[in-house]
Amino acid sequence: MRIADLPTPCLILDRTVLARNIRSMAGALSRLGVPLRPHMKTAKSIEVARMALLGQPGGITVSTLAEAEYFAGHGIRDILYAVAITPQKLDHVAKLNAAGADIIVVTDDPETASAIAAHPKPPRSLIEVDCGEERSGVVPDSAALMEIAARLGASLVGVMTHAGHSYSGRGIRDMAAIAEQERASITFAAQRLRQAGHAITIVSAGSSPTAMHAENLSGITEMRAGVYMFGDLFQAEIGTHAIDGIAVTVLASVIGLRPGRVLVDAGGLALSKDRSTADAPHDYGYGLALDLAGRPSYGPAFVTRAYQEHGVIEMHPDYLIPLSVGGKLRIAPNHTCMTAAAHDRYFVVDGEDEVVAIWTRVNGW
Amino acid sequence: MRIADLPTPCLILDRTVLARNIRSMAGALSRLGVPLRPHMKTAKSIEVARMALLGQPGGITVSTLAEAEYFAGHGIRDILYAVAITPQKLDHVAKLNAAGADIIVVTDDPETASAIAAHPKPPRSLIEVDCGEERSGVVPDSAALMEIAARLGASLVGVMTHAGHSYSGRGIRDMAAIAEQERASITFAAQRLRQAGHAITIVSAGSSPTAMHAENLSGITEMRAGVYMFGDLFQAEIGTHAIDGIAVTVLASVIGLRPGRVLVDAGGLALSKDRSTADAPHDYGYGLALDLAGRPSYGPAFVTRAYQEHGVIEMHPDYLIPLSVGGKLRIAPNHTCMTAAAHDRYFVVDGEDEVVAIWTRVNGW
Repeated sequence: MRIADLPTPCLILDRTVLARNIRSMAGALSRLGVPLRPHMKTAKSIEVARMALLGQPGGITVSTLAEAEYFAGHGIRDILYAVAITPQKLDHVAKLNAAGADIIVVTDDPETASAIAAHPKPPRSLIEVDCGEERSGVVPDSAALMEIAARLGASLVGVMTHAGHSYSGRGIRDMAAIAEQERASITFAAQRLRQAGHAITIVSAGSSPTAMHAENLSGITEMRAGVYMFGDLFQAEIGTHAIDGIAVTVLASVIGLRPGRVLVDAGGLALSKDRSTADAPHDYGYGLALDLAGRPSYGPAFVTRAYQEHGVIEMHPDYLIPLSVGGKLRIAPNHTCMTAAAHDRYFVVDGEDEVVAIWTRVNGW
Repeated sequence: MRIADLPTPCLILDRTVLARNIRSMAGALSRLGVPLRPHMKTAKSIEVARMALLGQPGGITVSTLAEAEYFAGHGIRDILYAVAITPQKLDHVAKLNAAGADIIVVTDDPETASAIAAHPKPPRSLIEVDCGEERSGVVPDSAALMEIAARLGASLVGVMTHAGHSYSGRGIRDMAAIAEQERASITFAAQRLRQAGHAITIVSAGSSPTAMHAENLSGITEMRAGVYMFGDLFQAEIGTHAIDGIAVTVLASVIGLRPGRVLVDAGGLALSKDRSTADAPHDYGYGLALDLAGRPSYGPAFVTRAYQEHGVIEMHPDYLIPLSVGGKLRIAPNHTCMTAAAHDRYFVVDGEDEVVAIWTRVNGW
C-alpha cells in the first residue's frame, strides 16, 4: 500500500523521523547522565514506546489510566501516572498493580495523601512540585510538601515536577534557563524531604524543551518527555527541534478548489482546534500544508479555517498547489498530542511512499 | 449507577433536554411544513438518530463515510453524505449502496461530476450551492452550476446548501435574515436547473440556527441540522436555544485546588480546544463549570486553561466551588460537536442523578 492509496483523513507516521527524534533526545540526556522515562501521552502506542525505550531503564509515563492499562497489558510494569490522582481512582490503580503492573501515582493534596496511605494496596507515590508553571504541585519550600510526605508515609518514593512553562520560552537559551529552574526546584524539594528522613529514590522532571536543552541535571534521577518523539509546528517554533523533525502529519484529500484556496477533508476533528502557534513567531493557523512526500513545496500554505470536517488552506500567490479534487497532500500539525488523539491508528512509512505498518493507539479514558 | 460514581472524564447526555431540543426543532419546521433530515455529525449515535427521526421521513445527514457505514448497518437507508465527495471515495459509497444503503453524495466540481456519472454504480447526487458562507459550493447564478448538472446526468437529483455563516449572526432576527438568504439561493439554483430540464426532487438546506429561526421555507424540500440536538455555549450565545438547552456536558473530577482556582481532569482532549465563544458576547474560555446536577451554581466559573489532561477553572470571588480533590462537577462545552468527538460513549440520564443507559458513538473516518 502506498500513501496515495490511503483513505483520508488519516495519520502518517514517518518512522525514520521518529527514530531520529528518539536518538536525539536519548543523546542529549545521555550526555548529562540521566535516563529517560518517555511520556507516552503523545504517541499512545506500544510500538512507539518500544522504540523510545531502547537503551533506557524501561519505565514510562502516562497521562490516563486507559494508557496505564494498555501499556501494562503489553508488559510494561514501571508506569508513572503523571496526572494527580484522586482517591476514587486508587482502586483502578490497585487492580492494575495486582495484575502485575507497578503504577506510581502523583499527588499535591494532603487529603489525597492520607487516602493513598490508608488504601489496602497503596501504590508507590510521588509528591508533585511546582517549579514555576503554576498549574499544579506544591512549591518546594512549602509546609505542604512536608505535610504530604508525612501523610504518605511508606508509600512516598520521590518527587516530580513538570516545567510546562518552557512552552512560553523561545529558543535554546530560554529552555536551558527554565531547565535549571526545574532542576533546582525539584532537587531542593528532594533535599528537604531527605533531611526529614524520607527515602527519596525518584527525582523526576521534564518537558520536551527542557529535556532537550538542559545543561545540568545533577540530582535528577529521570527526565520525562513525550512530544519530542513526533514533534510539531509549535515545538519547532520554540526550538525543541528543526522543522523537518515533525514525524506525524495528517493526510488529506482535496475536496474543493477556489482561487487562492484549497478545501480539504481534514477539519477541526482531524487536525484539532489547537491554535498554539497563534502565540509563536510564525502563526500556522491550524497547520501547514505539505506535499504528498511531506516536503514544504507549497510555501506558506496554512489551514486558516477548520470546520468539523472541512479545512480551508489559503495559498500564497507565489506558490501553486497543483492538485484537483481527489488529490492528496499532508498537513503538519500545530500540536501533535491533540491532533493524534483524534485518530485511532498510524500509517507508518520509512521516509518513502510505502506504508510499512499500521500501529494502533489507545485513546480515551 | 449514579453520575457521581462514573469514571472521569466522561460525557453525560441528558435525554430530557435532548428530547426537548428535538421537539423544539421539529415543531419549528413543522410549522413551516418542511421535514427534517437530521445531521448526525454531532451525536454519531443510532439511539439519538432514532429520537431525532420521530415523525420525520427517515433520512439522515452524515459528515463521514464511517458514520454512513455505521448508520446503514443500523438499518437507515436514506443517507446524505454532506461533505463533497472525491472520485476515490465513490467505490466505498457504491459498496455501502450495494449492501442496501442509498447514500446521496454532494459535489461542486465538474471533474468529480464526470467521475460520478462514469462510475459503474453512480450514487444519487446533489450539487452543492454556496449561499453566502464562502466555504464550498457553486454560486446559484454560475455557469458551473449548469455544467456540473450536465455532467452528472441521470445521477443528479437535487441541490443542497449550508448557511454556515449563520454562526456569525447574533440573535433571532439575524438568523431569520440568513435563513431567507439560504432559501432564496437554493431555490433559485433549483429553478435554474429545472428550467434546463433537470428533475430536481431534493432542495436541501440548513444549519441549526437557520432551521430554528426561518420564517419561510417555501421551495425547500428538507432542512438539515445537527448541533441543535445537544446545544452548546456557542449556540446559546447566538440564540439557537436557551442556556438550559445544553444536553451534553463533561463530567470531571477535581484533581487540585488553589486559591481562586480548581484543577480538573478534563483538559484539551476531553473538552476540545474549540474557542468559538471567544467571538461571542460571553467568552466562556474552554467551558462553563456546573454542579453535579448540571446547574450553574458556581457563577461565571470558566475553564481558562486547557492542557492535554488538565483543565484550570478560574472561580469568581463571589462564588465557591465547595469541592475537595475527588469531588465532581460538570462542564458545559463551547462546541459540542468537537467535545463529543473525543469520547466514545454517552452516559445517559433523564434529568436526574441515575445513569439509565450507555450509548456508543461512531468516531473517526
